[in-house]
Amino acid sequence: MNDSVLNKPMMPIVESIPNISEGRKLDVVERIVAAVQQTAGVRVLDYSSDASHNRSVITLVGDPASVRNAILALYEAVVPAVDLRSHSGEHPRVGAVDVVPFVPIEGVTMAECVALAREVGAAVAERFGVPVFLYEEASDNPGRKNLEDIRRGEFEGLAAKMATPGWTPDFGPATPHEAAGASVIGARMPLIAYNINLNTDRLDVARKIAAAVRHSSGGLRYVKAMGVKLDDRNLAQVSINLTNYQKTPVHRVFDMVAREAARYGVAVLESEVIGLIPAAALTAAAEHYLQLERFSPAQILENRLREA
Amino acid sequence: MNDSVLNKPMMPIVESIPNISEGRKLDVVERIVAAVQQTAGVRVLDYSSDASHNRSVITLVGDPASVRNAILALYEAVVPAVDLRSHSGEHPRVGAVDVVPFVPIEGVTMAECVALAREVGAAVAERFGVPVFLYEEASDNPGRKNLEDIRRGEFEGLAAKMATPGWTPDFGPATPHEAAGASVIGARMPLIAYNINLNTDRLDVARKIAAAVRHSSGGLRYVKAMGVKLDDRNLAQVSINLTNYQKTPVHRVFDMVAREAARYGVAVLESEVIGLIPAAALTAAAEHYLQLERFSPAQILENRLREA
Repeated sequence: MNDSVLNKPMMPIVESIPNISEGRKLDVVERIVAAVQQTAGVRVLDYSSDASHNRSVITLVGDPASVRNAILALYEAVVPAVDLRSHSGEHPRVGAVDVVPFVPIEGVTMAECVALAREVGAAVAERFGVPVFLYEEASDNPGRKNLEDIRRGEFEGLAAKMATPGWTPDFGPATPHEAAGASVIGARMPLIAYNINLNTDRLDVARKIAAAVRHSSGGLRYVKAMGVKLDDRNLAQVSINLTNYQKTPVHRVFDMVAREAARYGVAVLESEVIGLIPAAALTAAAEHYLQLERFSPAQILENRLREA
Repeated sequence: MNDSVLNKPMMPIVESIPNISEGRKLDVVERIVAAVQQTAGVRVLDYSSDASHNRSVITLVGDPASVRNAILALYEAVVPAVDLRSHSGEHPRVGAVDVVPFVPIEGVTMAECVALAREVGAAVAERFGVPVFLYEEASDNPGRKNLEDIRRGEFEGLAAKMATPGWTPDFGPATPHEAAGASVIGARMPLIAYNINLNTDRLDVARKIAAAVRHSSGGLRYVKAMGVKLDDRNLAQVSINLTNYQKTPVHRVFDMVAREAARYGVAVLESEVIGLIPAAALTAAAEHYLQLERFSPAQILENRLREA
């Protein structure tokens, strides 16, 4: 076996999912997306706009330096075009470029994504005069890790909030940008949206299971969960967000939900991934249940093909 | 979500693993490998020679037309260089190019690999005068699906065998090529070499489990298995070859081995993949144990990235 092929490092890939506070003027959104798309080394995987939220979400990938350039190109397009003083929408927001997470996908560590968030944050503050708050893994401040905590009070309350102790931004001016507010920039793991359907219509059971497995009420560290009713199928569902699949793996959540369900005489009917899931989350489940040892991603045929 | 990205067809990839009857003259082997490597659209993933077997195995991948060209280039290099009349080695063989399987990897059906085997078989017979027997999925003849059945009697017994009823080749002359014998060309699924170690040193238990799960003694259709002893770890092992992971999945074999082991008061210590495994075999295990429904490979983040 040709070890040099197996050991070749993968091309580094970072994902970023900037959220911008414009979801109604689609010509403006198109121009912003075009600015990202025209950046060398970057691909836009997806973008979507929500009129009631008045917000758009863009998903892009590339090597760290190219993703950095793409985010700065995005600010260049957004800052003159989006004015929060005349913005309304259902979704909470604190800035024209509201949130910019960097997510390690392949051949990149979380530490490198944190470094990228700091570099971009500093550049945004300097070039555009927009104050930047770091969040999630990029923040060392326990009170400023959570996006909701930073965004509380929204754009309208931002000037007052920034005047209180503890709310000096990580980069940039001590007061909001007149039109663009502030930005929340950080690094996090990919989210997995994962639902488990029960063979019952009892919403109370789904809610009790959700309370048992989610972090906020005593459950697993990287789980958010709620019980919901699927009216069209007459089923109860535990609807889950996994915020770090490496530390709280899908299979552990599945097993815990099944065990809790059994306590109510209920079984798991099926589970479902909504949107995208990293291959490693599925491989980890296979390794767990098959008790695989000494397994390496280099043994996956497709990884071998990609390297060759 | 941008559906056109999700629905974009994958680039078709076929794997071929030609086995040639030369494993001692490494300069000859290098020249043969070079002929394959120089074919446009083809990558050699691996090759290795065994002196006691006097045999070399080359693993290559590419689109179907390029793989066809590479195999014909291989014959061009092998036929003048390898003479079975003066060949000896431990491994059974019937030809200079002994076996050529085509394996569907990505964006290619088994039917397309069967068609490729027939096309290459016809071309080999015509250009090199070597008789070709189709095997596995490429053969419609139940007595000529199994490689061992075709190879029985080896090169030395080939002329006599081909003179008996039922042994007319699928392509080419009714008698062996003087120096190059015959070739066995066909299509098959990727093999998975998979071992399950038991928390016991009892070889008899491993042997009983192997007999229970393997096809030849009443077990699962696409399983070959034997019990062995790992002397260095003082463990008994069920050593398995899975010849069609789509029809007999890894997780079903694992569960059956664990159930059979329990009958002897033994547990599964661990399992192990030897060499490469298709991503789909691991994904199928995750889908099975997590009871995943409505899941598509297009939801795997890395597949999405590759398409973009």
